[in-house]
Amino acid sequence: MKNNVLIICLITAFFGLYESNAQTNMLKQKKFMIRHTVVFKFKPSVDSIAAQNFFVAAKRLATIPGVQNFESLRQISKKNHYEFGLSMEFANETIYEQYNKDPLHEQFIQQYWVPFVAEFMEIDYEPLMN
Amino acid sequence: MKNNVLIICLITAFFGLYESNAQTNMLKQKKFMIRHTVVFKFKPSVDSIAAQNFFVAAKRLATIPGVQNFESLRQISKKNHYEFGLSMEFANETIYEQYNKDPLHEQFIQQYWVPFVAEFMEIDYEPLMN
Repeated sequence: MKNNVLIICLITAFFGLYESNAQTNMLKQKKFMIRHTVVFKFKPSVDSIAAQNFFVAAKRLATIPGVQNFESLRQISKKNHYEFGLSMEFANETIYEQYNKDPLHEQFIQQYWVPFVAEFMEIDYEPLMN
Repeated sequence: MKNNVLIICLITAFFGLYESNAQTNMLKQKKFMIRHTVVFKFKPSVDSIAAQNFFVAAKRLATIPGVQNFESLRQISKKNHYEFGLSMEFANETIYEQYNKDPLHEQFIQQYWVPFVAEFMEIDYEPLMN
């Protein structure tokens, strides 16, 4: 009986430590292929409540299949005039294209992006090997 | 004797699983305070070898105290005319300021940034709570 408990404990210990390393390494490596970002500025008519609604709606984009590491961001550099940002990652170009065509994305563009956003710039990155 | 081994195993198992969760959560949350990014375009005189030297030099910026998650990036969106990007994170404003004043950073600006870069835009983000 005691031997069985011992074996179970050893397996659990090994698995716990192995998992710890595997998960940490996976997250540290951040193997994204495409990071899609957009930096933007609201129209003057967009007050703080409207802005909040915008970001609540934007967060739903994170539920579109393939969207990883979705982030709502505040732009704080004084060297440009944009106010906010969105960032998300995709494993490949196909998944990025599917995201663009997703009804939830198209609905967000029509209901929030076009009426709320005054100016924006899209910047997409892929890792540079060096 | 067997009891001692059992206790050690139980402690290891608990610690392994606890560590696994703690590390995973810490990395998942990505508790950066400032993400400093710059998107840029090289001067036409910068060939591929010069560009490679630039990124080797840029990578040394990651050794400046407080620099986290340093990334060299290729800009791939056709909706802007920039070619590359650098991204790094700082825990707070003070560490970001110290980075800016660091001799290694100032040397990089003089030896590589000014002579190599034609156009650029700095975009700094902080997480937006919503």
